[in-house]
Amino acid sequence: MDIYLASGSPRRRTLLENAGFHVHIIQASICEDPIENESPEDLVKRLAQEKVQAAFSKAMHPWLIVGGDTIVELEGEILCKPSSREDAIDMLQKLSGKCHRVLSGYCVGTAEKIVYGICETKVAFRVLSRKEIIQYVDLEKPFDKSGSYAIQSDAIGFVDKVVGSLTSVVGLPLREVIDAIEQLQNG
Amino acid sequence: MDIYLASGSPRRRTLLENAGFHVHIIQASICEDPIENESPEDLVKRLAQEKVQAAFSKAMHPWLIVGGDTIVELEGEILCKPSSREDAIDMLQKLSGKCHRVLSGYCVGTAEKIVYGICETKVAFRVLSRKEIIQYVDLEKPFDKSGSYAIQSDAIGFVDKVVGSLTSVVGLPLREVIDAIEQLQNG
Repeated sequence: MDIYLASGSPRRRTLLENAGFHVHIIQASICEDPIENESPEDLVKRLAQEKVQAAFSKAMHPWLIVGGDTIVELEGEILCKPSSREDAIDMLQKLSGKCHRVLSGYCVGTAEKIVYGICETKVAFRVLSRKEIIQYVDLEKPFDKSGSYAIQSDAIGFVDKVVGSLTSVVGLPLREVIDAIEQLQNG
Repeated sequence: MDIYLASGSPRRRTLLENAGFHVHIIQASICEDPIENESPEDLVKRLAQEKVQAAFSKAMHPWLIVGGDTIVELEGEILCKPSSREDAIDMLQKLSGKCHRVLSGYCVGTAEKIVYGICETKVAFRVLSRKEIIQYVDLEKPFDKSGSYAIQSDAIGFVDKVVGSLTSVVGLPLREVIDAIEQLQNG
């Protein structure tokens, strides 16, 4: 089945391709800044929808479009993509020994209808040494990752416990997105 | 810190090395067959201990030895390593759309003392198509993996929900093993 993905993330693309979809990329830039007083839940839901809406203006065929947005929240603070090596090191230091939330908004739309939702995963990191954080940042360069880590990399060793969707932490809650695609297809 | 690992698993080695340990491998073969009426919990605990005991006879220095054993249990049935391509495909077909348990036994020992425990993780797979299962098995050849999948590979896309330790699913509950090492070092 052919779908459009409103994201340049190779991780989202791989998840969908391995699940059997023929994925076409449409990158449509949107402003990803939060609105004042916007909750993390509202932010990811809004951005997922805006990505799909922006992609519709570029889509060549009346296919189905998938969009997603993922953020990391720690004790009320939203951790976005790190702005530098030092920022990435600081972010991982903050996450060390604590439990954070990963929130993914997802949106699946056709010309007629959209389905969207959010998915929450709790992730607890063990206590990390500064040395292993620096080694990870210098090796993986996680500058395009919210929270400065990719769970499908060596950072899997940072994770103590997980409660919730694992693909949401990768960047797209795959089961929920497949359910939404089926819901759209069945009317 | 120098440690011995009583296992040839590159995944266990990488987890420990990334956490800052200098890992030496001692492979000591033991019989991994379950004893009649042995529970999955007792099995992984016993095998982790036997691996450490077997390694002690080969260790050159009085260092600390780490051993671990991981199995997958689905509805009362223990899923070991697949014996063939067809067996791997059948195993993943069984896991499709269901929740299974991953049990890891771990054991950390010095000449004076051992610390051991078990770690349980619940993993729910989304419904998988036969096509994606075959594609995964032919690409990843998961013949050395209990349950026929490695969560740190493309099989991360099979996983819907996780509750518990993620490194245990990789093969060694890292936080628990680090805690056990600290416990031994502090007397």
